[in-house]
Amino acid sequence: MAPGAGRDEIEALIVQMARLPGLGPRSARRAVLHLLRRREGQMAPLAAALAHVAETARDCPLCGNIAVGVTPGAPCALCTDPARATGEICVVEDVADLWAMERGGAFKGRYHVLGGTLSALDAIGPEELGIPRLLDRVASEQVREVILALNATVEGQTTAHYIAEALEGSGASVTSLAQGVPIGGELDYLDDGTISAALRARRAL
Amino acid sequence: MAPGAGRDEIEALIVQMARLPGLGPRSARRAVLHLLRRREGQMAPLAAALAHVAETARDCPLCGNIAVGVTPGAPCALCTDPARATGEICVVEDVADLWAMERGGAFKGRYHVLGGTLSALDAIGPEELGIPRLLDRVASEQVREVILALNATVEGQTTAHYIAEALEGSGASVTSLAQGVPIGGELDYLDDGTISAALRARRAL
Repeated sequence: MAPGAGRDEIEALIVQMARLPGLGPRSARRAVLHLLRRREGQMAPLAAALAHVAETARDCPLCGNIAVGVTPGAPCALCTDPARATGEICVVEDVADLWAMERGGAFKGRYHVLGGTLSALDAIGPEELGIPRLLDRVASEQVREVILALNATVEGQTTAHYIAEALEGSGASVTSLAQGVPIGGELDYLDDGTISAALRARRAL
Repeated sequence: MAPGAGRDEIEALIVQMARLPGLGPRSARRAVLHLLRRREGQMAPLAAALAHVAETARDCPLCGNIAVGVTPGAPCALCTDPARATGEICVVEDVADLWAMERGGAFKGRYHVLGGTLSALDAIGPEELGIPRLLDRVASEQVREVILALNATVEGQTTAHYIAEALEGSGASVTSLAQGVPIGGELDYLDDGTISAALRARRAL
């Protein structure tokens, strides 16, 4: 499928696009064709935005968030925002989870992004997740509460328990997100585990 | 959802990605996060490939194909390939259809990309589809056969009939792709129209 020069470069672009999650070879081809028809209005601006973010995005050395427009080596905007409470740290597995928390808008403290979960199989230990760094922060930033907002999976909960144990004696209280029926959730569609958890954590009306 | 500087530029990138067909806001966010974690290895090369193709891709003035690495104003590699027969033109609606024909690899002639179908509603007439240009080519390139490889939709077939009429008296024979049971197709899953068409066009074994 290489009919002459030029087609190969478009083909290579399709292969690169197909490596994105959610896109396969077919949808990548469709996306590239869509862009080829809008080279000035959409393709060039997308290329520029990708190049800009690729070049200027930095991992925050403090919380592990990925942010653009920060001096290299300096903490991100979330870590330096004076309007955010310093006494609370919300621990998340991933930058995507930080974004999800921020969309909620209910948390006004600082974050700590682990970048994964403990996994003996993949040789991911506390060091790889920055847990010693978290313990340092709890001590130096006079943190009163560490909120574990980890996924409700086996890996997430194992990691949560490890962190809770490591924080024993630090003086900070350790909490985790409530488990129960999601807003708008219908009991009929919920798994048994969620219903049991919601029943155990029932509240007086 | 704009917690401080930098996040906005990532958010703008997600919005741009979400405009691609096949990606919604959620999958665009996932794709951008995937790239943010692979800034050097995947994000920067993708940006460079997009920028290169956006800058160097050209519409072929002869056939309407989109190709990279062609001198501006010059015909594409398919149009200038001496190994391809000049006496046959395959008319397709779209560059995607040209790509599909090339993947098949059975056609070794030249192409003509309409860029759409006739549509009174959208004010797309023969001029917009380059049909006068096609008639010129049929005359000047001594074309013996025009193969109409248009989609088997109402719009595609209406356009096919228009072109067939316009080519009457040009000396070129006009053919269209056979309709029937696709390779590997199961009768039980085919629509009635396809089965009827396949029956009408039945062949002696």
